[in-house]
Amino acid sequence: MTIQPTLRKLLTIVCEAELENSLLREFAHHGVTGYTITEARGHGAHGTRDAAWPASANIRIEVLCEERVALEIVESLQEKFYQNFGMVSFLSDVQVLRPEKF
Amino acid sequence: MTIQPTLRKLLTIVCEAELENSLLREFAHHGVTGYTITEARGHGAHGTRDAAWPASANIRIEVLCEERVALEIVESLQEKFYQNFGMVSFLSDVQVLRPEKF
Amino acid sequence: MTIQPTLRKLLTIVCEAELENSLLREFAHHGVTGYTITEARGHGAHGTRDAAWPASANIRIEVLCEERVALEIVESLQEKFYQNFGMVSFLSDVQVLRPEKF
Repeated sequence: MTIQPTLRKLLTIVCEAELENSLLREFAHHGVTGYTITEARGHGAHGTRDAAWPASANIRIEVLCEERVALEIVESLQEKFYQNFGMVSFLSDVQVLRPEKF
Repeated sequence: MTIQPTLRKLLTIVCEAELENSLLREFAHHGVTGYTITEARGHGAHGTRDAAWPASANIRIEVLCEERVALEIVESLQEKFYQNFGMVSFLSDVQVLRPEKF
Repeated sequence: MTIQPTLRKLLTIVCEAELENSLLREFAHHGVTGYTITEARGHGAHGTRDAAWPASANIRIEVLCEERVALEIVESLQEKFYQNFGMVSFLSDVQVLRPEKF
């Protein structure tokens, strides 16, 4: 077996779609250039957000990075967005190939 | 670092889209109000379900909650749906901010 | 509690949508028949891929399987696709019901 998986954090953020550009700026600021976005809809403390209404749709963004970077991003999101926007963030441990990409 | 991540379970369910309302009732019954849904398509023991055919599309639902609640929900899903519907559930450990929301 | 969760690997692959059939053949070759696909868009080393441009959209595929199978699939993907295509794979530990399905 030639694979050497490396541990990284998977940071998942679910939030209002209109925050996408702000989040991408946050990622870039922390040196994270790779991300994956899927359209989502859901319900939380801020009420149901239906993806049939684009202005109120959610996005689900995933980022792979080192733990330190993940926590810095989450801390920044907490300061900037949690008060005024519906946003959920969670971290999980994953094994990746090509750790140098993350 | 001011973040104090807390461990929670991420419960992911992939099933036929027509089960959405039943699942939301299950969640509410167990005190879970927050969830995220993405449209999905896939293949399992019940055959390929193509999202181009809405009546047979799948949904992928994610819920963050305490382990006890996650297991109760999964047990209920197993009793009610596994026999007659294509459904996959899995649990993973995640760290969250705002644990009081979950 | 009658549930006996079993540990499996969740293999997540994010790649160009045109690789879907190749990936499904890989899965079948390794005895994996179940998978879930969601449409995605994102940015990585190969530039932004916008799902509004179907020819360059991404897909996010999830597969549940035993660790040995997951690593074999990842090794095969690395050999066949990593050089020429934007592809990200990661593994995480999950608990599943119905382990015999995976």
